[in-house]
Amino acid sequence: MRKQLMKGNEAIIKSAILAGCRAFYGYPITPATEVAEAAARYMPLAGGVFLQAESEVASINMIYGASSAGVRVMTSSSGPGISLMQEGISYMAGAELPCVIADIVRGGPGLGNIGAEQGDYHQVVKGGGHGNYRTLVLAPYSVQEMADLTALAFELADRYRNPVVLMADGFIGQMMEPVAFAQTAIQHEPPAWAVLGTEETRGNLINSLFLNFDEMEAHLNHLEAKYHRAEELETRAEEWQTEDAEIVLVGYGIVARILKAVAAEARADGLKVGVLRPITLYPFPKPHFQRLAKSAKVFVVVELSNGQMLEDARLALNGARPVEFLSRMGGNVPSHQEVLKFVRALARKMPSAARPEERQAVHV
Amino acid sequence: MRKQLMKGNEAIIKSAILAGCRAFYGYPITPATEVAEAAARYMPLAGGVFLQAESEVASINMIYGASSAGVRVMTSSSGPGISLMQEGISYMAGAELPCVIADIVRGGPGLGNIGAEQGDYHQVVKGGGHGNYRTLVLAPYSVQEMADLTALAFELADRYRNPVVLMADGFIGQMMEPVAFAQTAIQHEPPAWAVLGTEETRGNLINSLFLNFDEMEAHLNHLEAKYHRAEELETRAEEWQTEDAEIVLVGYGIVARILKAVAAEARADGLKVGVLRPITLYPFPKPHFQRLAKSAKVFVVVELSNGQMLEDARLALNGARPVEFLSRMGGNVPSHQEVLKFVRALARKMPSAARPEERQAVHV
Amino acid sequence: MRKQLMKGNEAIIKSAILAGCRAFYGYPITPATEVAEAAARYMPLAGGVFLQAESEVASINMIYGASSAGVRVMTSSSGPGISLMQEGISYMAGAELPCVIADIVRGGPGLGNIGAEQGDYHQVVKGGGHGNYRTLVLAPYSVQEMADLTALAFELADRYRNPVVLMADGFIGQMMEPVAFAQTAIQHEPPAWAVLGTEETRGNLINSLFLNFDEMEAHLNHLEAKYHRAEELETRAEEWQTEDAEIVLVGYGIVARILKAVAAEARADGLKVGVLRPITLYPFPKPHFQRLAKSAKVFVVVELSNGQMLEDARLALNGARPVEFLSRMGGNVPSHQEVLKFVRALARKMPSAARPEERQAVHV
Amino acid sequence: MRKQLMKGNEAIIKSAILAGCRAFYGYPITPATEVAEAAARYMPLAGGVFLQAESEVASINMIYGASSAGVRVMTSSSGPGISLMQEGISYMAGAELPCVIADIVRGGPGLGNIGAEQGDYHQVVKGGGHGNYRTLVLAPYSVQEMADLTALAFELADRYRNPVVLMADGFIGQMMEPVAFAQTAIQHEPPAWAVLGTEETRGNLINSLFLNFDEMEAHLNHLEAKYHRAEELETRAEEWQTEDAEIVLVGYGIVARILKAVAAEARADGLKVGVLRPITLYPFPKPHFQRLAKSAKVFVVVELSNGQMLEDARLALNGARPVEFLSRMGGNVPSHQEVLKFVRALARKMPSAARPEERQAVHV
Repeated sequence: MRKQLMKGNEAIIKSAILAGCRAFYGYPITPATEVAEAAARYMPLAGGVFLQAESEVASINMIYGASSAGVRVMTSSSGPGISLMQEGISYMAGAELPCVIADIVRGGPGLGNIGAEQGDYHQVVKGGGHGNYRTLVLAPYSVQEMADLTALAFELADRYRNPVVLMADGFIGQMMEPVAFAQTAIQHEPPAWAVLGTEETRGNLINSLFLNFDEMEAHLNHLEAKYHRAEELETRAEEWQTEDAEIVLVGYGIVARILKAVAAEARADGLKVGVLRPITLYPFPKPHFQRLAKSAKVFVVVELSNGQMLEDARLALNGARPVEFLSRMGGNVPSHQEVLKFVRALARKMPSAARPEERQAVHV
Repeated sequence: MRKQLMKGNEAIIKSAILAGCRAFYGYPITPATEVAEAAARYMPLAGGVFLQAESEVASINMIYGASSAGVRVMTSSSGPGISLMQEGISYMAGAELPCVIADIVRGGPGLGNIGAEQGDYHQVVKGGGHGNYRTLVLAPYSVQEMADLTALAFELADRYRNPVVLMADGFIGQMMEPVAFAQTAIQHEPPAWAVLGTEETRGNLINSLFLNFDEMEAHLNHLEAKYHRAEELETRAEEWQTEDAEIVLVGYGIVARILKAVAAEARADGLKVGVLRPITLYPFPKPHFQRLAKSAKVFVVVELSNGQMLEDARLALNGARPVEFLSRMGGNVPSHQEVLKFVRALARKMPSAARPEERQAVHV
Repeated sequence: MRKQLMKGNEAIIKSAILAGCRAFYGYPITPATEVAEAAARYMPLAGGVFLQAESEVASINMIYGASSAGVRVMTSSSGPGISLMQEGISYMAGAELPCVIADIVRGGPGLGNIGAEQGDYHQVVKGGGHGNYRTLVLAPYSVQEMADLTALAFELADRYRNPVVLMADGFIGQMMEPVAFAQTAIQHEPPAWAVLGTEETRGNLINSLFLNFDEMEAHLNHLEAKYHRAEELETRAEEWQTEDAEIVLVGYGIVARILKAVAAEARADGLKVGVLRPITLYPFPKPHFQRLAKSAKVFVVVELSNGQMLEDARLALNGARPVEFLSRMGGNVPSHQEVLKFVRALARKMPSAARPEERQAVHV
Repeated sequence: MRKQLMKGNEAIIKSAILAGCRAFYGYPITPATEVAEAAARYMPLAGGVFLQAESEVASINMIYGASSAGVRVMTSSSGPGISLMQEGISYMAGAELPCVIADIVRGGPGLGNIGAEQGDYHQVVKGGGHGNYRTLVLAPYSVQEMADLTALAFELADRYRNPVVLMADGFIGQMMEPVAFAQTAIQHEPPAWAVLGTEETRGNLINSLFLNFDEMEAHLNHLEAKYHRAEELETRAEEWQTEDAEIVLVGYGIVARILKAVAAEARADGLKVGVLRPITLYPFPKPHFQRLAKSAKVFVVVELSNGQMLEDARLALNGARPVEFLSRMGGNVPSHQEVLKFVRALARKMPSAARPEERQAVHV
């Protein structure tokens, strides 16, 4: 398979079109604008629709409509736009409508800046909209994964009839790397539940209204069952040199690239350091944490945010192991040296085998 | 002090006006409509402004404006409207603007229904908007507290220059109880940072834009310091018969009223059951959990949602004690018998003194 | 050519598609809803786009965008929606962008009702938006003309680079008549001025901003020259038995059908009555009025509005002949008897040959 | 009475407050921004409300609401904003709600520029919204008249229960002149038809919906009767040296100031030139035209637009006298010399006493 060099934001759209996506409604915002730009360029060539809506509120409701009609549909934005979509996302989850939303995170809150951050974690992973719902969240860390996880996102969205968020950042969005598109072009057929304006689909109803309490509760239990199934079946994470790791560095997206470099260098120093990279943020890869907790002594969560994934890591471990935390924000990314220094300091404080010099001392 | 009989939604507004609030911008939605209605009635009598905006997006931006001008200002809505406000709330937190938002939660996600639920917990407690910010969240459980916590909300909003959410539900909003307004009417003066259109305030700037990464990070660290200060100083919870409790029932809002009845009855059976009622949902009353964990054997979180506060309870305990979970949703509220049955079943499974009959057996 | 039986509102869309129109953005409103419905059904089959926007304000701005990209594009609405489009229409006229807008007029002002009226005449003919501009306005009076004038509208819109309004009413919109589509399907190519996102069109600029007064005035004179050219070349009207008419009944749209019946009956009585039916409301068919003024003694304007076309008729005649006025409004349409009675009364007051009995008297 | 030096845009607001106006909802746009600015400054001092809305669409609907509640209320904007208000204005006229709208006209169509123009004439005078309605339109030509006609506008709005437009331009809006406020401060009481949220006003209904055709027609005839009454009673114009004028220059607003200078100079040359300045554009001062037509030989309409008032002048004269036309646009204003030259050329072509040199020739 021939690889093409391209930006992450472009890879999303090319992959989406191969996945059968034929509609993109959105509103430009740095650093997500290239996704919309690529959609404007390529969607019409594939016989699809690109439309820059009046606002993100308008976009997400167009997506609601297109999804109701059985079209594979997506949008992209960054934090402020994702905030404006929260009502619509909640409605889509409530009405069990699939769609893919690429959040190319910028610095925040408020206007913030266009630096790479991960401050939207709570918003997309816990559900910034109202009511009892979840969105599945995938976190690519390379241009190749921008393509691969977009394809997966459409699959999961349809399988679970639920919005799926691709949570990336400006680094991944704008860096250029070679990409291979493994998938063959999908001709998406409208699912049986879609409303097509035809005689056969006249009985189909897309709605999130349940006036009767028991019916509403049954619906919510149905959604919960779906989410639990996803928690069982869909967690994805990458482990890197974790087999014997005493210190497990945890990070997603751009951060994971730094952590691997740190782990490599730490191992050269004799420190048993591994990397756990969550690929699904929801469902969160708890099993990986719980398995690694048996051997590892400490986990270090590194985030470009104020301790958001940190909570999920702690929930996954439930006190089984300590979780340390290192964070940079505002567009600043921790340097490889900064993390390494943190890891070394941590190792020095550990009473155990994690510190090679001490171990040696013990052996002597 | 003479008490007046009134609805919870009305108590919010009367208390707000006593607290010096002079502007209300909102859009009606069941079960929050009476808050707007009371504001329409009483705000003009106090020389204040009531305005029904075009949408919740418009409302929250009017609130941004009024707050910038140093006015004590509030809104109310329910889930869907709160979703539409997420962008504005994030901007206000970023620009350090105080305001009070009453979320009278309805069933969700999507349209849902008008039943009492607590499904907006993640949205308001974790921050449904974008970026690294928090809103302080207060959870009244009586009409009196609707008044008292509204007054507190305005105080905290100003002290922390941050939006504060009053998270209630239709039960508390629409039930009538006697209320005493302890506070004397406050004449709110615009703070020194406000933009008043005067010569002296010309230098004041309300903004959430920090293009420089280091400045943005410094701003975020400043916000974090504020939130940590709130976590130290502002946690509030009510404990009820927890001194010797082996089973601690945890619930907020309307749920806590049921839990107290359950605990009373369980104690009549000889079960050592107490109630922990978080009043602040953020900052979450961790110290209460941690202190009670020393004596209690198990915690039971009861929610009208799908395990949202449950996460905070688990984070607070960090594995120190097991946390059981009981939930009803969709407008259904667990009956006192349902919870009691759950507690009894739990007590039977416990190996210890929590089960009176077993203890007796042991004594024999 | 085989004729098909269909509604006027459907004929618009079928004709539009044959005319190469490939995009419809709109918002439903009675009695224009069937136009949108037909667009939703047929536009995708032709590889085009149908989108129901958030509002008419959103629609017209989408049309601005599509037109800028060289697409033949249209919308439809009724009075309230047309009002919301006035800003966008003015911008399109200023930026010289073609589009077709079908106004299926309802009763007004305000909400009014869904009855057939012609009260939007001033709005669409004089220009309800701001600044010095005009829209060309065509007034079909049969289902066949709904098709034919739609085709003409697209032609004129392109020729004059200006919005063209098709002004009809609920009668014409919803009645069914046989229609023949004379035109062959047009493959519309984007014009040279369009902005296509390509290298070659990068220099193209679509704008209505002219900060410099002289440049603005030159632009306005350029627009005026266009409008004057249209006034010379594009006026269209139907005359019916006007050769010897002493009383000329003037009416457009559904009214003209009544007037023809009236004229036939009046002639059976010996009254020399003809009908002048403006087909273009702007440019207004002044030459027809001026030519007929040489022989006719009086003109009678019959409108479903409060004397709006009446002004144009008077301006066309400039005092050369008296203009009488008959109007019904609110959804009421003057009956054939009502108009005939008016004509007979008028004839009795005339000193001249228009009254056959008097003429006879003179002959005796 | 002491005069104060101020801008025209400021005079509007000071006069409005004296007239009892207590609410201003708007959105800034050059050259109307100072009106909003003055409202922001002074309205709160008078216990009133100033609110910058999300858009002009939002503003006009707030005005609908405030007016329904019996408050004297106003807004200001320029062309693009006035376009966005057309739906709301039509609704207010339909529901018979008073309000005052200051249109400080800029160049157009589209974005245009901020130069002084009169291109919104058709829009505000003929009714740019939908359906059979009119707005009364007043055209100040000095800062003093900005004040006086604002007071009159509120009076007329209430008397006719209809929106009244103050149509000015950036010159009048931004020039400074001394102003005397003749009026005493009015304490406006809500009229009997207002909806106040009280028991007594519960039966009041503000609406523009008339589903029944006959009721709608009766309502429209009621509106027409109102407009005809205004046409009889409310026309206002200034005449200047028209008693013996053979050439009558017609212009409103800033143009009239130029015309007076032209007339003075032309008279110094011996040309009998006078000025007719319409103060009410609707109702149009037909009686003045008709009376002057008895003595004058020709009328010259001078506009900053493409022949809009020209039509009303021709309608008023109905062919009785020729109407010449001179226009500048785009922010350009005809110089005094330019008009004088036009007048001299016209006089030379006239066969009569209007040309002094010819008269002399005759005398010789």
